[in-house]
Amino acid sequence: MIRSMMLAGGLLLALSAGLAQAGELRGTGDLGIAVERAKGSLQWLDTTHKTVLGRIEGLGDLSHASAVFSRDARYAYVFGRDGGLTKVDLLTGKIVNRIIQSGNSIGGAISQDGRYIAAANYTPGGVKIFDAETLELVVDIPAWSEELKGLSRVVGLEDATDNRFVFSLFDAGEIWIADLSDDPKQPKLTKFKNIGREPYDALVTPDARWYIAGLFGEDGIAVLDLWQPEKGVRRALPDYGRGQEKLPVYKMPHLETWAVSGNLAFIPGVGRHEVVIVDIETWQKVGTIPVAGQPVFVMARPDGRQLWVNFAFPHYDTVQVIDVPSRQIVHTMKPGKAVLHMEFTPRGEAVWLSVRDGNRLEVYDTRSFRKLTELPADAPSGIFFTSRAHRFGL
Amino acid sequence: MIRSMMLAGGLLLALSAGLAQAGELRGTGDLGIAVERAKGSLQWLDTTHKTVLGRIEGLGDLSHASAVFSRDARYAYVFGRDGGLTKVDLLTGKIVNRIIQSGNSIGGAISQDGRYIAAANYTPGGVKIFDAETLELVVDIPAWSEELKGLSRVVGLEDATDNRFVFSLFDAGEIWIADLSDDPKQPKLTKFKNIGREPYDALVTPDARWYIAGLFGEDGIAVLDLWQPEKGVRRALPDYGRGQEKLPVYKMPHLETWAVSGNLAFIPGVGRHEVVIVDIETWQKVGTIPVAGQPVFVMARPDGRQLWVNFAFPHYDTVQVIDVPSRQIVHTMKPGKAVLHMEFTPRGEAVWLSVRDGNRLEVYDTRSFRKLTELPADAPSGIFFTSRAHRFGL
Repeated sequence: MIRSMMLAGGLLLALSAGLAQAGELRGTGDLGIAVERAKGSLQWLDTTHKTVLGRIEGLGDLSHASAVFSRDARYAYVFGRDGGLTKVDLLTGKIVNRIIQSGNSIGGAISQDGRYIAAANYTPGGVKIFDAETLELVVDIPAWSEELKGLSRVVGLEDATDNRFVFSLFDAGEIWIADLSDDPKQPKLTKFKNIGREPYDALVTPDARWYIAGLFGEDGIAVLDLWQPEKGVRRALPDYGRGQEKLPVYKMPHLETWAVSGNLAFIPGVGRHEVVIVDIETWQKVGTIPVAGQPVFVMARPDGRQLWVNFAFPHYDTVQVIDVPSRQIVHTMKPGKAVLHMEFTPRGEAVWLSVRDGNRLEVYDTRSFRKLTELPADAPSGIFFTSRAHRFGL
Repeated sequence: MIRSMMLAGGLLLALSAGLAQAGELRGTGDLGIAVERAKGSLQWLDTTHKTVLGRIEGLGDLSHASAVFSRDARYAYVFGRDGGLTKVDLLTGKIVNRIIQSGNSIGGAISQDGRYIAAANYTPGGVKIFDAETLELVVDIPAWSEELKGLSRVVGLEDATDNRFVFSLFDAGEIWIADLSDDPKQPKLTKFKNIGREPYDALVTPDARWYIAGLFGEDGIAVLDLWQPEKGVRRALPDYGRGQEKLPVYKMPHLETWAVSGNLAFIPGVGRHEVVIVDIETWQKVGTIPVAGQPVFVMARPDGRQLWVNFAFPHYDTVQVIDVPSRQIVHTMKPGKAVLHMEFTPRGEAVWLSVRDGNRLEVYDTRSFRKLTELPADAPSGIFFTSRAHRFGL
């Protein structure tokens, strides 16, 4: 009997240790990941305790990788450059499903209701939509262009209200809306043609009203009002872009995280050492703010009071902070040789930076600019927190 | 040996059943609660599956109760009218801590960094700040008024950036800021006097920039720019309020959920059958929208495209939906005798309603206005979802 009890006790201990390893009972609103591109792995992050919970391996080619989150904030869906779509459980730190959904992918989105994952593909050009639970294919939307007599690469895939996905056709110069609200297996497609040459990236504003595509093949941007799509795509900011002089552009800026504060958008100048201020009511340029280099990301702190800016080569060691009301640079720092990405905690009291060549993440207080901690990571790039689950276009 | 194995197996089964009861491993981004006022209990909600997970009992007097959420989206902090502050674990459905922190309380807030819970008290008048982990008192801030030679009741307690709490003194006519960023045990207080007679409720805008107090003792509102508090409190909307004619006001509208869409705020008319439109840039009234009764809550869907409005007696059976761009009422419904509260899912594809006298919650699709489900609840009032954890002023 005593031996039985001891045996039972031993099993219980083993079981509880196993459960602790498999994942503790904990909230998921304060979790996140940082991409370790070269290793094909993720650092698994806790933003409350500012710690690394572990490393999650086996995600394939993570160059230019991005992630979206399930509506319960438990699962990350990671889009890899190799067409891999990996579902990661942030409670257990395990990959729960992984498919190679295309030959070459450039990111994706999760539907408003959280039931569908969409991936934007270069090869073959189009959008594939998967069940968020099982990763089974729900529908394949080839980006067929009559003019090209072929498939166009797809970029700038964003989620919007009414379970819509919106995306741009790089080669065809089109913007499409796929509306899944009636029948996800047969999305209603709305196509806008001649929206501009070579849309290369896009965003939706935080209110999911405006879809904006940046153009690589000419200057200007394409603007679609998702509240009134029947009005069509219009062009704006004719001077925005690489310009006639073809300035040397070290890296086309990312658009997904355009900073919006009130009715103003703050966008990275292309090839210029400036942040451009745009009035969203009129889509006119209303000012510029000189900065240290060519901006890559211009990100608004969640309250819109500050903008954090990082830069392309040769200024990718620098981060600048702009105070929105005064439009002044209030802080400049050089955390390391190459700062690749920045992510704010949900209410913005801290910001996490990827310092690639330093092989570390750094966490700063956004009020005092004091460094709160450093965490090791292998050449980190993108950082993504679960609070994105509840926002549009992230 | 066989008996030992059986015994161990039995214990394992018992343990795993106990764990399932105690709380499954699950994400917390899609959880919520609905207050059952009369029973002093909560319905524990899952917004993904649109189900009730259970009832949580023992929360005391929940009239006018409200809740905030921990930054990991695991715990609800429920403020009861009896001064009770109850910490509820939404993974286990259990109360993990409960204190009676005052004699009479009117709600509270959680600090930007998630470390502090503040409660606004009538008796004794003031704000008490607690450690979010332990509910131990961190600091007591009596709302002492020189003019009154006594304590003022405190209302309209809101969280803002830089770990500040902002609140109004009903009897004293003051607004105070408590800044916890340097030393939470000794918050830096900034006091604004003569802000108007009897501020009765307040809000911060979703960007945490503007603190607005409604006035019970006179017409108009008090406006404080938290980006520039040194500019002081100013008055706006001189015609907003009960007016000279003293219209019969069946219920002073709630302010905490003023709808903000772009640079416009949509606010409940006091004693009037209208929603008032205010330009936040100028704090001028720029229009009104006629509605079915005296509005209580005017709530914007998270994308700002729709406003959902409920009403005071005798129209509290009615809910109306306003389309923001056209400012037209696009839907009117009567879900039951008294609709007390509304809460949107994080990205707004659905809205949950408290139908008090029907003893049920109803869930609607916000695009089609189709009813998705009904769930039983005992005279439900406030509904609160964990996505509030990551927003200001909620």
